[in-house]
Parts: sequence; structure tokens; C-alpha cells
Amino acid sequence: MKDHIFVSESRFRVRYAETDAMRIVHHSSYIIWFEEGRSEYMRQIGFPYSRLEKMGFYLAVTEIKARYLRAAKYDEEVIVRTSVGSLQSRGITFEYEVLRASNGELLAEGESKHICINSGGKPRRLPSEIVDLIRRSTYAV
Amino acid sequence: MKDHIFVSESRFRVRYAETDAMRIVHHSSYIIWFEEGRSEYMRQIGFPYSRLEKMGFYLAVTEIKARYLRAAKYDEEVIVRTSVGSLQSRGITFEYEVLRASNGELLAEGESKHICINSGGKPRRLPSEIVDLIRRSTYAV
Amino acid sequence: MKDHIFVSESRFRVRYAETDAMRIVHHSSYIIWFEEGRSEYMRQIGFPYSRLEKMGFYLAVTEIKARYLRAAKYDEEVIVRTSVGSLQSRGITFEYEVLRASNGELLAEGESKHICINSGGKPRRLPSEIVDLIRRSTYAV
Amino acid sequence: MKDHIFVSESRFRVRYAETDAMRIVHHSSYIIWFEEGRSEYMRQIGFPYSRLEKMGFYLAVTEIKARYLRAAKYDEEVIVRTSVGSLQSRGITFEYEVLRASNGELLAEGESKHICINSGGKPRRLPSEIVDLIRRSTYAV
Repeated sequence: MKDHIFVSESRFRVRYAETDAMRIVHHSSYIIWFEEGRSEYMRQIGFPYSRLEKMGFYLAVTEIKARYLRAAKYDEEVIVRTSVGSLQSRGITFEYEVLRASNGELLAEGESKHICINSGGKPRRLPSEIVDLIRRSTYAV
Repeated sequence: MKDHIFVSESRFRVRYAETDAMRIVHHSSYIIWFEEGRSEYMRQIGFPYSRLEKMGFYLAVTEIKARYLRAAKYDEEVIVRTSVGSLQSRGITFEYEVLRASNGELLAEGESKHICINSGGKPRRLPSEIVDLIRRSTYAV
Repeated sequence: MKDHIFVSESRFRVRYAETDAMRIVHHSSYIIWFEEGRSEYMRQIGFPYSRLEKMGFYLAVTEIKARYLRAAKYDEEVIVRTSVGSLQSRGITFEYEVLRASNGELLAEGESKHICINSGGKPRRLPSEIVDLIRRSTYAV
Repeated sequence: MKDHIFVSESRFRVRYAETDAMRIVHHSSYIIWFEEGRSEYMRQIGFPYSRLEKMGFYLAVTEIKARYLRAAKYDEEVIVRTSVGSLQSRGITFEYEVLRASNGELLAEGESKHICINSGGKPRRLPSEIVDLIRRSTYAV
């Protein structure tokens, strides 16, 4: 009866615009891929982030960490694996791994911390529905 | 005996980072989507642009035009349809349509002109293999 | 008694993130520089675009054209020269030139067309104050 | 006889393209501003990063951390303060603070770690000239 953690996967190709003069993917592109990762995570558990915003809630980013291990190049396929690292009443931490699809090599890993705010910028509790969906996805009973 | 034109399709979701403070996709994002469109076109005819670069050729952008008709929002699925508008020995013009996947509405259309250069920046003839592949894809006999 | 046209100038350095694997500035970066150009234009005539938005008006982009003549590299200083090409009651066209600061070479030129809309997306007349400021800046009496 | 630390300052306005649908600056833009910060640092100590690249060296990013405290909006002026946190023979850590120019509020802070590599991707010692310039700027004797 082991706990399981739900990990979503996004798969896409490196865009030319995401490269830089070192001929590899610019490090800021991974930050955007992390975001794409958590977008996919939310879609896969059945609560797209766009729906959260329609309800008047936002997940503001309070912290980003990224470690870069290997470079990716234009046209390569990458996979972003996203999971929830921790969940509080008003906050959430996502964890990411970016892999080269062709050989599974780890390119980068990182995490992002978020607080839930309303449109006025005030901290708010995450809607219970989303907390339940994440809990159910992430921890086995 | 009608001519046909090959049209490639890329399909992806709007990233949050591609939006701006008007809460819609920033107009520069479409320019990057056009690029993604022609990347997909090249892959689909069997000659990825990354292979062209490995041969020492580059398609430098000399002109961009875009017309914006409707806005797209975060999380919406869009389709980029790409075709070749004209082909010369040293140049190529791609044409684009960006559609909202959910209802087929045309969001934007545009074109990009390119010249083929070598790594030193000198204009060069496009490799005949690529010219043949585009000709075969684009014009029926 | 010749007409004069007001031309604003923005001056900044190429950011590393604006380059791509061709080791030059990515063509989409110029579209963002154009936007920075018209931001500066609005500031210099005394009506920052941020003020327009606070009044509930937006200048939505309906068309972009860009011609690329020479490449720019990381760390180079560039100058964006912006002027108003035409002005209608509900629309405006800006024109741009991007120059290399070190030798004045023209790197790119282009234009952007805009319509004035309200927050609901409906076309609206440009506030008369802004029309007057642009007219006064652009045409001598 | 207190040690001093050299801190470079870059000052610029938030671009519209740097905002997102929350109507504030997208968190990935700060990562690019950090890069602009270390570019300016290198220029100010007299060894622009572009010169390092011309010598065949690159500072590859191995780690990024950012903490976000307050939001910035379009058209606001920001200041990026950059200093060197630590210096090794083959690596360097930069530290950043992003401030709102109008009131000095701290918007974000972060750091980036780099290793020096050659064009083949092999770790290399930083050129002694650059080490000397940073040492001289950062520590008083």
C-alpha cells in the first residue's frame, strides 16, 4: 500500500525562438516549460488553470528554482514531467523534470512555489475542489 | 487535373507566457507560431529545418507580415496551417493561417519571406533535394 | 514652412535572450522593439500608453509588417525611431526604423496598424487629447 | 577597512510584451532581467560578456533561483542591482535585486550560478583578467 504521486507529462519540440546564440535552448525557456508543465498537470487532474482564473483565483509565483544539467537544441523533442511537491491551504509547490525524449536524459529540474490570490491580490484558500483533486491524484489511501 | 497545395498543420495550446496585460495572446507570439508552422511544414515534407542547418544552410527571414483578426486566450487550442506561397532558387515564401481549434475561426494570417544563406551570410541556392520535395508537395502534375 | 514629423528615439542594448541559434537577434524581437518604440513615442508626446489603458482604451494591433536588412548581435546598441504614419478617428499607424547605433546602419523597418477599442473589445474613437498631441507633434502649421 | 562589494545598476522600463494575463510582469521576464543585470555588471567592470565569447569562453547557466515579492506593471521603471556572490576558478555566482525605481520597493531577488566552458562545452578556467577585474571590484584591500 505505497503512496503514489501523480506525474503529468507534456511533450513538445524545441522552438527556434527558444534557442540563443550559444545554439542551445535559453535557460529562461525552461521556466516557461515549467509553466506549461503545471498547465498540463491541472488539465489532467480535471481542473484547468483557466477555470481557476474564471472563478477569480490566481496562482501567483512566489519562488522559482531551476538546475540545468544538459543542453537541448532546436527541433529536439522534450518531455516535461510535473508533480505536486506540497500543498497548503493557500499555497502549492510544483516540481518539474525536463527530459530529452529521444534518450530520456535529464536536461533540467526545478520547482515553483505559488500562493493563491484573488483578483485584488489578497491571499485566499485554494478552492476545496482543487485541493481534493490534487490530494486524490497524489496520495493513495 | 487541378493543382493542389500541401498544407501542414501544427496544433498546440496557448501558453500563459504568451499572453499580455490585455489578457489575450501578445501579437509577437503569432510570429513565433508562424516559425513553428514552417518547422512543422519542413518536418512533414521530410526535410526538417534542423537538417538544413546541419548542411550549413540557413533560411534568414527578410520579411514578415501578419494580420490579426480575432484574439486568442490562454489554454485555447490553436492550429497553424502552413503552405509555400512561392519558391525561387535562393528564396522561399511561407504563408500561414492561425485558427481557433474549437470553432475554426481565423485568428490571424500572415507570410514570411526567406533567403537561403550559408554560415558566412552569403546567399546560396536552396539544396535541390528540398526544392524537389516542396515542388512535389505543392504542385500536382 | 515645411511640414515636420516627430520621430521618437529609444536606445538600448541587445539582450542575450533576444538572440537565437543563428547567433543574431531573432526576428520576433524586432516586433517587441517596435512596441517599445511606440511606447517611447507616446511617453515623449506626453501621453504614455499606460495612461490610455487607465482610461479604459486599448490600441489593439491589427497588422504588422517588418523588413529585415541586416543582423544585430548580442550587446550591440540599437536605436528605434518611431513616427506616426497615419491617424484616423479610431485607428493609428506607427512606422519604425531600427538602426545600429555604432554606425547608423538600417537593420530593419516596419509598421504596425492599430484600432482603438474599449475593455469590451468594441472600436472606439481615440481620445481627442491624444489625437491633438499627435497632430501637433507630427504636422507643423 | 571594510570590504566593499561592487554593485552594478541597470535601469529600464517594463515592456508590454513582458506582462501576462494577470496584468503584471510575467515571472520569466525577471530571469531575462537578471541576465541583463549581469551583462551590465560585466560592461561596468570593463569586460563585456561579448568579449568573453569572442575569446571562445561561455558562462553556461547551471542554476537559477528567484523569489518574487511584489508585482511590476507595464511602463514602470525598474532597477536591477547585480553583484558577484562567489567566484571560483571555473565558476561564478551572480546575485540580483530588482527594485521599483519610483519608490525603491524590492520586487524580486535571485541568483544565478555559472560554469565557464569553451565552445566544445568543456569546463575551463575563467580568464585571469576577468577574475582580477571582479576581485578588484568586489573586495577592497
